Amino acid sequence: METRDADELCALDATDLARRLRAREISARDVVDAHLDRIDRVNPQVNAIITLDAEGARAAAKAADDGPVTGPLHGLPIAFKDTHDTAGMRTTYGSPLHADNVPAEDELVVARIRAAGAIRIGKTNVPEFAAGSHTFNTLFGATRNPYDRGRSAGGSSGGAAASLAARLQPIADGSDLGGSLRNPAAFCNVVGFRPTPGRVPALPSDNLWDPLGTSGPMGRTVADVALLFSAIAGPDPRAPLSLETPGDAFRTVTEIDLRGLRVAWSPTLGGLPIDPAVSAVLAAAPTVFTELGALVEEATPDLSEAEFAFRTLRANAFDVGFGASFDERPDAFKPALAWNIEQGRALTRSDVGRAVAAHSRVYQAGIRFFDEYDVLLAPVTQVVPFDVDDEYPREIAGEEMHSYLDWMRAAYHVTTLGAPAISVPAGFTPEGLPVGLQIVTKPRSDLFTLQVASAFEAATHHGRRTPTF
Amino acid sequence: METRDADELCALDATDLARRLRAREISARDVVDAHLDRIDRVNPQVNAIITLDAEGARAAAKAADDGPVTGPLHGLPIAFKDTHDTAGMRTTYGSPLHADNVPAEDELVVARIRAAGAIRIGKTNVPEFAAGSHTFNTLFGATRNPYDRGRSAGGSSGGAAASLAARLQPIADGSDLGGSLRNPAAFCNVVGFRPTPGRVPALPSDNLWDPLGTSGPMGRTVADVALLFSAIAGPDPRAPLSLETPGDAFRTVTEIDLRGLRVAWSPTLGGLPIDPAVSAVLAAAPTVFTELGALVEEATPDLSEAEFAFRTLRANAFDVGFGASFDERPDAFKPALAWNIEQGRALTRSDVGRAVAAHSRVYQAGIRFFDEYDVLLAPVTQVVPFDVDDEYPREIAGEEMHSYLDWMRAAYHVTTLGAPAISVPAGFTPEGLPVGLQIVTKPRSDLFTLQVASAFEAATHHGRRTPTF
Repeated sequence: METRDADELCALDATDLARRLRAREISARDVVDAHLDRIDRVNPQVNAIITLDAEGARAAAKAADDGPVTGPLHGLPIAFKDTHDTAGMRTTYGSPLHADNVPAEDELVVARIRAAGAIRIGKTNVPEFAAGSHTFNTLFGATRNPYDRGRSAGGSSGGAAASLAARLQPIADGSDLGGSLRNPAAFCNVVGFRPTPGRVPALPSDNLWDPLGTSGPMGRTVADVALLFSAIAGPDPRAPLSLETPGDAFRTVTEIDLRGLRVAWSPTLGGLPIDPAVSAVLAAAPTVFTELGALVEEATPDLSEAEFAFRTLRANAFDVGFGASFDERPDAFKPALAWNIEQGRALTRSDVGRAVAAHSRVYQAGIRFFDEYDVLLAPVTQVVPFDVDDEYPREIAGEEMHSYLDWMRAAYHVTTLGAPAISVPAGFTPEGLPVGLQIVTKPRSDLFTLQVASAFEAATHHGRRTPTF
Repeated sequence: METRDADELCALDATDLARRLRAREISARDVVDAHLDRIDRVNPQVNAIITLDAEGARAAAKAADDGPVTGPLHGLPIAFKDTHDTAGMRTTYGSPLHADNVPAEDELVVARIRAAGAIRIGKTNVPEFAAGSHTFNTLFGATRNPYDRGRSAGGSSGGAAASLAARLQPIADGSDLGGSLRNPAAFCNVVGFRPTPGRVPALPSDNLWDPLGTSGPMGRTVADVALLFSAIAGPDPRAPLSLETPGDAFRTVTEIDLRGLRVAWSPTLGGLPIDPAVSAVLAAAPTVFTELGALVEEATPDLSEAEFAFRTLRANAFDVGFGASFDERPDAFKPALAWNIEQGRALTRSDVGRAVAAHSRVYQAGIRFFDEYDVLLAPVTQVVPFDVDDEYPREIAGEEMHSYLDWMRAAYHVTTLGAPAISVPAGFTPEGLPVGLQIVTKPRSDLFTLQVASAFEAATHHGRRTPTF
């Protein structure tokens, strides 16, 4: 295939590609070949896809072309997040402890995407055990931002976001505890959607009642994200947090009228330091909503206990999850993870109990907030993409960051609301770095989140500015 | 009102009473007066209702008669469980620490029952902080079994079950962590339904994601339980575990055909000691299902980790919930509660983490089990109602019980399945003591549980044998 033809196919939206694939106007082989070709040329510059199975992908594409149309993702190539188990394909979780791990089974989100007809081409890079929002590890190195290869692509779904922005794949799966779908989307000028926990059942799981972590969809447009979301959302009887709505309900994002919508604009989420370069770009966002007829005012939910609740529950989960491995092989953990595990160990059971109670109060405060406002607008990241060789930003707007988590508060404070939250492209700094807008609506109103994001996208089109290679 | 007239009204099923009240065939005043009259005469023998507001009840009844029909429970008198907050009415939780506690607000289950038209007459007795399945406390003493006043009524919804059996009220609210709706129902020959957690939102709550505790309905028939369930079930946006089905969906229990139903009969739930007197009564239950056309075989879900999961999570919750009060006033706690709090304190965070993982595995094992079987039948209690002056049974079938929890395993092991579980009257021992059958179906299939229970009830009618006073 000519490079130009390949790049043209790779530039198409997933919804467009999917429509043509399902109509057999283009073949899955051509689509997969185009992406493999572009990955060959472009991936070395971003290091987003760290495992590739070209042969398997081509065979699956042929089977897709020769067989029936199987689902809404028929023929779309996808590289799965390397923290998501893929049957027969190396899954490292970004950790040297699992460098040679080959799972026997797909985990649920992967299985659903494949069952919907997508074609597995490989895996996307992640931070070690998805910890932190900058994608680097000792196995594969760092993922680079397609808009500035000297900068971070964010994380933990950093390989996913960068590969979308670099047009190496049309859709991507991710997951989000403290911003892992939203931060890399903001850094890479794509869309990352953290759904209400329970929309995408977390299976398998050691804690079926975990209210914080969730898988979710990423794409270059809201419509693409909705298409993928429709394939991964919906209940599973094995997951007690499952929400009942079938995934199909999310496939099409019908247009909504924003007139009269009560929109809260929270420029600092209650006093978080925000890089002026981010604030300058986001200053235009509320105006977009006003122009669409919404009633915009400054307001913030009561997140005063979000920090304690999130950090405590996260540290506890890290020790519970990784403590035993850490005791066996402390050398195999990055210092930030070791520090996080130690933080967990410094907690008492009663700290954890108080954190659950605090989380319950934050959640209730969010429900009261969304009685007053239909939509919350806020920054996703408090900084622009930082130097790819830095572990994390050491200060924001003059305030020192003491750990690899401190700079992620705008994302993880929102996590504690239990609400659907999406990052959509909001524009660029004068130096050309992408900035994301976080749109949050009340728990379970996932389709509404997508509709509001789609309205903002249609009014602004920031996602259309592509990186050059 | 003549005693006989009062007793006749009090003997009516709740569904029958509700129908006549809604049709204005009888007045709420007459129904309330009849119950107040009977409470005066009979309650001293069972000590089930420990707070009574006759004046308030009569005023509310008058208002109900003079106003519109407000809901499905219009005019039905109810005494609420004393662990459930009632606005302006003493709510002690069975603890001397709260002897004079008068909440400002109704908690959700109470508010829903009142909103559905029921008339508050008072409160029902509970063990201290609802801990344990025998209802006694230092404030009000013990509740006695209507079928044998020398024996326990069970607990923690013991006042509720005894007042139903004694015809002191037609419906009752309860709650269930480790059997508190089911055990007293079994001991008192009434119906107690532990729904899938999330059907009745737990509000307010210090742990919105608690998968173990739930409120639920009690009554003398399955239809009465369904009527009350329809008023208390249904989602609330403040409760993230809320299941979406509106309560109305449960109001009517349509008849189902049991032919071909795959029924698992588990006489010991995997080796629990069962009093031969209980086993002898329950031996007839599987036959009832066989005669209704079901395919019955012996089978038990894998509950091997249920003991560790439940006991660990419960002890942790007790320390987190009561630890601070206990440190201030250790003398105000019964020894069994003090022991339970100390058990919590002996745990590590990592024990709790392992218990969550174990619970997740038990839940999954249950899901696999219910892929194979539509219904699980098991004992509710492992013993017949024991001496009211004993704290708990010291041995069962020759096996020593070391704590006030050990004898409740048939109920609390089932709790860990996350499934709807109901106790229905299954017959009497030769000495006239009631025995309950536990019917369990897969998580979220609450209506089906009620339907199966209704079929068993219609085929047996054990609930019709009333206690004499």
